[in-house]
Amino acid sequence: MIIVLKANASKEDKQRIIDKVHSLGLQTMVSAGVERSIIGVIGEEDKIRVQPLEAYPGVEHVIEVLSPFKLVSREFKPESSNIKIKDVTIGGEKIVIMGGPCAIENLETLREIALKVKESGATVLRGGAFKPRTSPYSFQGLGVEGLKIMKQVCDEVGLLSVTEVIDPRDVELMAEYVDIMQVGARNMQNFNLLKEIGRSKRPVLLKRGMMATIKEFLMSAEYILSEGNFNVILCERGIRTFETYTRNTFDINAVPAIKILSHLPIVVDPSHATGKWGLVTPISRAAIAAGADGLIVEMHVHPEEALSDGTQSLNPENFEAMIKQVGAVAQAVGRTI
Amino acid sequence: MIIVLKANASKEDKQRIIDKVHSLGLQTMVSAGVERSIIGVIGEEDKIRVQPLEAYPGVEHVIEVLSPFKLVSREFKPESSNIKIKDVTIGGEKIVIMGGPCAIENLETLREIALKVKESGATVLRGGAFKPRTSPYSFQGLGVEGLKIMKQVCDEVGLLSVTEVIDPRDVELMAEYVDIMQVGARNMQNFNLLKEIGRSKRPVLLKRGMMATIKEFLMSAEYILSEGNFNVILCERGIRTFETYTRNTFDINAVPAIKILSHLPIVVDPSHATGKWGLVTPISRAAIAAGADGLIVEMHVHPEEALSDGTQSLNPENFEAMIKQVGAVAQAVGRTI
Amino acid sequence: MIIVLKANASKEDKQRIIDKVHSLGLQTMVSAGVERSIIGVIGEEDKIRVQPLEAYPGVEHVIEVLSPFKLVSREFKPESSNIKIKDVTIGGEKIVIMGGPCAIENLETLREIALKVKESGATVLRGGAFKPRTSPYSFQGLGVEGLKIMKQVCDEVGLLSVTEVIDPRDVELMAEYVDIMQVGARNMQNFNLLKEIGRSKRPVLLKRGMMATIKEFLMSAEYILSEGNFNVILCERGIRTFETYTRNTFDINAVPAIKILSHLPIVVDPSHATGKWGLVTPISRAAIAAGADGLIVEMHVHPEEALSDGTQSLNPENFEAMIKQVGAVAQAVGRTI
Amino acid sequence: MIIVLKANASKEDKQRIIDKVHSLGLQTMVSAGVERSIIGVIGEEDKIRVQPLEAYPGVEHVIEVLSPFKLVSREFKPESSNIKIKDVTIGGEKIVIMGGPCAIENLETLREIALKVKESGATVLRGGAFKPRTSPYSFQGLGVEGLKIMKQVCDEVGLLSVTEVIDPRDVELMAEYVDIMQVGARNMQNFNLLKEIGRSKRPVLLKRGMMATIKEFLMSAEYILSEGNFNVILCERGIRTFETYTRNTFDINAVPAIKILSHLPIVVDPSHATGKWGLVTPISRAAIAAGADGLIVEMHVHPEEALSDGTQSLNPENFEAMIKQVGAVAQAVGRTI
Repeated sequence: MIIVLKANASKEDKQRIIDKVHSLGLQTMVSAGVERSIIGVIGEEDKIRVQPLEAYPGVEHVIEVLSPFKLVSREFKPESSNIKIKDVTIGGEKIVIMGGPCAIENLETLREIALKVKESGATVLRGGAFKPRTSPYSFQGLGVEGLKIMKQVCDEVGLLSVTEVIDPRDVELMAEYVDIMQVGARNMQNFNLLKEIGRSKRPVLLKRGMMATIKEFLMSAEYILSEGNFNVILCERGIRTFETYTRNTFDINAVPAIKILSHLPIVVDPSHATGKWGLVTPISRAAIAAGADGLIVEMHVHPEEALSDGTQSLNPENFEAMIKQVGAVAQAVGRTI
Repeated sequence: MIIVLKANASKEDKQRIIDKVHSLGLQTMVSAGVERSIIGVIGEEDKIRVQPLEAYPGVEHVIEVLSPFKLVSREFKPESSNIKIKDVTIGGEKIVIMGGPCAIENLETLREIALKVKESGATVLRGGAFKPRTSPYSFQGLGVEGLKIMKQVCDEVGLLSVTEVIDPRDVELMAEYVDIMQVGARNMQNFNLLKEIGRSKRPVLLKRGMMATIKEFLMSAEYILSEGNFNVILCERGIRTFETYTRNTFDINAVPAIKILSHLPIVVDPSHATGKWGLVTPISRAAIAAGADGLIVEMHVHPEEALSDGTQSLNPENFEAMIKQVGAVAQAVGRTI
Repeated sequence: MIIVLKANASKEDKQRIIDKVHSLGLQTMVSAGVERSIIGVIGEEDKIRVQPLEAYPGVEHVIEVLSPFKLVSREFKPESSNIKIKDVTIGGEKIVIMGGPCAIENLETLREIALKVKESGATVLRGGAFKPRTSPYSFQGLGVEGLKIMKQVCDEVGLLSVTEVIDPRDVELMAEYVDIMQVGARNMQNFNLLKEIGRSKRPVLLKRGMMATIKEFLMSAEYILSEGNFNVILCERGIRTFETYTRNTFDINAVPAIKILSHLPIVVDPSHATGKWGLVTPISRAAIAAGADGLIVEMHVHPEEALSDGTQSLNPENFEAMIKQVGAVAQAVGRTI
Repeated sequence: MIIVLKANASKEDKQRIIDKVHSLGLQTMVSAGVERSIIGVIGEEDKIRVQPLEAYPGVEHVIEVLSPFKLVSREFKPESSNIKIKDVTIGGEKIVIMGGPCAIENLETLREIALKVKESGATVLRGGAFKPRTSPYSFQGLGVEGLKIMKQVCDEVGLLSVTEVIDPRDVELMAEYVDIMQVGARNMQNFNLLKEIGRSKRPVLLKRGMMATIKEFLMSAEYILSEGNFNVILCERGIRTFETYTRNTFDINAVPAIKILSHLPIVVDPSHATGKWGLVTPISRAAIAAGADGLIVEMHVHPEEALSDGTQSLNPENFEAMIKQVGAVAQAVGRTI
């Protein structure tokens, strides 16, 4: 941590800060620069992170030099993590494809979709039972009934399931029905939910918040790991920017950046990242080319009738074609599908 | 709702959409423009909002023309709402000032702060017992112990209390201890939390998410009102932008915009909106000049020792001076303090 | 400047960087931290700013600690600057109001508007002769003819003039016709234009780019001052964010922030900052409450017929009412109008 | 164009607008909805685009339904455009790679770099002679001397050249020395510069502004085409967002989006899009996978000594490795390199 003093900071100001740092068991190194003094803090930065040193007289600003995350960092664990769930491994050489509807609508439709997902070679079925919707008047999902349908279909067809959890009270229940619990973008900083999931030890797909920095995203993963659950799959799904042509701006830089910063696997959601089904296939190819470990894609047998987000859903033909194209790119970057 | 067709949409494409709209009990009006056709939908737009019409063949895009919120809108209730809590009215002629620490640290400190708040003429004590923190290793608040301290101090000193609720499981408990429940920016779209609060009927201060549009902010308020709780105080606290000099960008436009769109009162949090105590006073003056109904400001007897956010806290002298200056501005815009 | 090394940086990596810094005539101070080493650079940071130290092996990242601007900074000149143009002073106790149309349309209309501006007590007439428009098919302004109209009207009515310059080739010409040259948001980083204006020594109103940080804004002003022209009036006019309800997000934080960082006067453009005439008056009040030195406001005698930006223009009655309200706020903050 | 009236708009308000639209030679279609009336405008939307209909009494807001660009649109020209410059074609099956330093430093260094560029199989040399720099105290480029060096090296080595033009006064001069004129992100809306380049008919690489929407980007290209110059290569180079880990956020969605909206070729600048050399290769692969027609990449023989942007420059080994990897991806998407 670096404390930059104001040009007009007094000797007393400087001494007061140095004393404070020492009182926390840390050391200081003072540099009397040409324009102003700078105090370097040596030791475990964590101890001082919560101290509002900027509120001290004479301080201009404080700069953190170390990353605030520990367990998620590649320095903590240099080799990439693989998450194994039944016969599927996420984070290995093989790209994982998750497909399915935005929301679970009924047994027949989900079964029909699941069969198409399976046929296309994907291994995980997605679909929401609890839907966080901007409007209280929109379809909010089938709830527990949806979970039961999900489980039945996955058992029948032979797919893993991933579905969103939005309430800490539901974590235990979800664990009975689904293989991977998803934390949605809106809940990325719902810390009590993260803690419950951390304690559950179940695999979790953590989506990046639409206005979260990469660092904040990794800090939210840290919440889960710090409770002892290392089965975390990160998911980049687009961030909010000034651009309105697409629903979100897909931050593809985050894919290789996270590969450098963390050992956790990362998948990409091209459906929410674009909001337009016509962009989903090229963006899926790009995600794999950039190094993503998998995709979570909206697919529906009748996108134009879907109860939510049909605009960004592929139909089965386009879903299959997308997987073929992604397969070619995967091979070009030394992976398989 | 306006459905813009592609230049190359076929007659069948057009008819399919018209049939769909009619099947929902709505009427259409077709305009065969020079470049392309446009279908206007007449009737209650809500019915069609969840239908992904953009997924139909031949559709270029769909434009919503009506606001999606009802109960919060000024059209629903033309006169401004006043929220009365004990002897304090929020939304009336008198500006309401809420002050206090970011986090409740202990009984003595909170009491000391509360006495200063009271002395300065403010009427509500703020302070967090449950703190949503980016890092799992940061101070997370005193929890229920904090609530008890809050209640004791407010009873002693004669102030209302406002404190954040972060978990739907805590709503009932909070209602015993605090006068106003705060929903923080990170939880603005924690819809289950909003519903619980809606059902509790208790006054709530709803903060705008740092990534939320004004419309989404009002939709979140709509969640609470739609459960029968009209005691909602909106709070603008800054949005996230590319600017890094300040912690957030205070969207002051939102203040008069919300006054046009909604009947609900709106207060401003200049501490989070700036992140720098040196900017809090001018921004407080500006908020009142723009028409805000009140302020929620961080104040601490020892900002440099505060367990969180000391950087943006005023000390008692500055807090008092701020209120004096705000009072002069309030008078200039026909209000009192 | 602080150079943070990677955890696995070698001794050779460290020595190579130290040698490089020394070769530039600067000193180093090395801190061997618990997790990694940090090299502090002592001396004039400017010397090293252009050196891409992050490209050296073993470097994680480089942190600048000092502000990059000099002449615009309050440290360089502690007392606030007043810009005097004929009988108007900008930056003093008296608030300056500039009003007029977006574009100059013809002599009669401009004269009519100017008379209203004068009557309302404002002292500067705004109006564009060269209009930078997003579309090549939109009205581009009257050009030199517009400048002549502007000069004639201002001479007749007794107002100063401010109008935009968009091409370095026009600077000399403009100087003959107008009192204050305006650099628009889109040209804030048109550095050759800034240099020409710097050399002209004429008063300039520099608008913040919609994508520019406060630091970049001040650096653009530095371009003008570094050519010897200190007659710079800064203008905050809103930044681009994800919010779409308003045309821009007015960054009111920038007003007190710039007052801390710089000695230059700052005015606010509430018309572009909101894009809606119904928000202009409350935002004008807020700007003055926050400490702005003046306003530049769009006004038109027939907003609904204006050739551009009529949506955000006040009519004469609203313009006059706005000035009255702003006057009351100015008094509340110890200023006059 | 759709004009949405306020719920309380009067009959007179409605008639006034209808009369106005008719007076422009356009037709109207009125829909008296349940909640409010909507007026559809039929005819050429351009005629009405500059009319500030939102300023009319009774109007809530105005919605444009058609794209404002003509010549750049794929509807105007359905087949993709190829730009042929000497023996290089941009926009065809073959991916084009442009490489070189941020700034031209001297003859020897540029020659050394050019030889490496050529060896790697790239066909265009990039390098700036006029550098738009945030600070007036940073290296501003060699100017005309740089252009001469560029021409000499390209002639010797057998490469095309691309370099930035920042002043309309330089367009004629540049045309003598360089094959492709680049318009930088900061000048994307320097409309007089665009017009000069339009008139010059020379090939141009137009970079997207860091806060420009896709529509605005295409409108800037429209400026050049509308002057008769169809030799426009678009370049996505990252947009500014709240994320600070990378220099910009690479908006990869823009690549397939622009392929849908326009016939013009698009290349990607992964160096500015990331700001970190370690991310350049994965992002280059992704860009090609998404459908980009080429890359413009910073490369330097001594990145750590480069006079600007060394942090984001590849060295020759990494540049060559990048091209190999990009080649494999190109093949996977049916293209060559």
